[in-house]
Amino acid sequence: MRTALLQSSGRPGSVAENLTVLDEAAGRAAAAGAGLLVTAELFLTGYAIGDGVGRLAEPADGDSADAVAEIAERHRVAVAYGYPERDRGTGAPAGGTPDVYNSVQLISADGARLANYRKTHLFGCFEREHFTPGDRTVVQAELNGLRVGLMICYDVEFPENVRAHALAGTDLLLVPTAQMHPFQFVAESVVPVRAFENQMYVAYVNRTGPEGEFEFVGLSTLAGPDGVARARAGRGEELVLADADPVLLAASRETNPYLLDRRPGLYGALV
Amino acid sequence: MRTALLQSSGRPGSVAENLTVLDEAAGRAAAAGAGLLVTAELFLTGYAIGDGVGRLAEPADGDSADAVAEIAERHRVAVAYGYPERDRGTGAPAGGTPDVYNSVQLISADGARLANYRKTHLFGCFEREHFTPGDRTVVQAELNGLRVGLMICYDVEFPENVRAHALAGTDLLLVPTAQMHPFQFVAESVVPVRAFENQMYVAYVNRTGPEGEFEFVGLSTLAGPDGVARARAGRGEELVLADADPVLLAASRETNPYLLDRRPGLYGALV
Repeated sequence: MRTALLQSSGRPGSVAENLTVLDEAAGRAAAAGAGLLVTAELFLTGYAIGDGVGRLAEPADGDSADAVAEIAERHRVAVAYGYPERDRGTGAPAGGTPDVYNSVQLISADGARLANYRKTHLFGCFEREHFTPGDRTVVQAELNGLRVGLMICYDVEFPENVRAHALAGTDLLLVPTAQMHPFQFVAESVVPVRAFENQMYVAYVNRTGPEGEFEFVGLSTLAGPDGVARARAGRGEELVLADADPVLLAASRETNPYLLDRRPGLYGALV
Repeated sequence: MRTALLQSSGRPGSVAENLTVLDEAAGRAAAAGAGLLVTAELFLTGYAIGDGVGRLAEPADGDSADAVAEIAERHRVAVAYGYPERDRGTGAPAGGTPDVYNSVQLISADGARLANYRKTHLFGCFEREHFTPGDRTVVQAELNGLRVGLMICYDVEFPENVRAHALAGTDLLLVPTAQMHPFQFVAESVVPVRAFENQMYVAYVNRTGPEGEFEFVGLSTLAGPDGVARARAGRGEELVLADADPVLLAASRETNPYLLDRRPGLYGALV
């Protein structure tokens, strides 16, 4: 499945303009034969917008989800996009505002909401102030014959999280991110190693340039199960494309039987 | 602590000649200020020597251990060396030969046997035919103010094993290896990522050149907690040295709080 990585910070603070950027990118991705378009973390609203992430948060089935579904259906390309999610189910806790999560949602080329993931490992003071951590590590959906998993940024730096996806059969892991200076080692080395040690594809899609106190480093990467980057963006805004190939994946798993050679009975210290 | 990595296959099949190579390397390491010398996997006997690994196997306190202790003490440098270990305690199982393990032993600069580790994750048909897997993942010893951990080759490719060491406080992980073509990605990328994601030093010490059916790739590496290789050997025989610095390690752990940010309650699928 050809996968398009939209390395863009869009227009922080403007959902309407970001939907326009997404629409244009979906058109280009579809024209290039992509079955899936992936954005960066919190693409819908912007990342470094302070209290804006709470103000602009919407439920997983809110108006912006409808707008993304319309874009996906019109261009016939699935879309995974990052956004701040306002929990609809639980309402406001006593004396507080409703929970807001740092989420990614996968919408099919038919406009159906396939899966929604809430970031479990929040990074730094900004995220801990504005978001509630999710409690479900493995969220997946079937897409064009691949089992697609969802994760966000800091989550992928913990080998435990990616291993859980591998054990659950994830073929292609989507990781919207907001990776900042000086942590480019994650894009350059950690992401390819996660793909290799778990025998899967990993699509890591970053923001770019300065935003508030942060400097995002780009370097979005689609890494294969051999640890080789199939696509790697530079530092600026860019749409990069590469294929996740189930035949190559199956062959690679034959020669790298990490999951079979694990000894889970010895790993008790990790939990 | 200055650490010397002896990238050498020695003379496969000849323990006496390998002790001579070790003696010479210990002299050079000590002269360069090293507190520790690390060899490759099964350095004492050779790797691709077929049934030889069983024939040449010795207990952890056998004659060769005494010879290594004498070398360490004479040069005032600790030595971690790979060897096939014959289990002394259990004797021969009914109808079989005594268990043989693929082991690494750490001997202090005083000649004391500090720790002995038996490889838990055996690689491929050759190892499974000749060795019994160990059942203890974390073996450590204190050395010159650092907590040193032991592991062998394929073990380090499983993130679970290195994480267990990090949780147990390992500062410097020693990994004698027999890394063969085409898996150089492990030396080049997996080892630095293990050091970064676990905030420790990792010394990965390989064999070189052709041996039996294998082609060892060298590339021995001492990686720091920032994911940067402090030393990296080429493909041939070489003694490389680099420092494991506890001050830099403490500072790096402050800015990369992976162990604090883990959520072990979510990792149940791994065990």
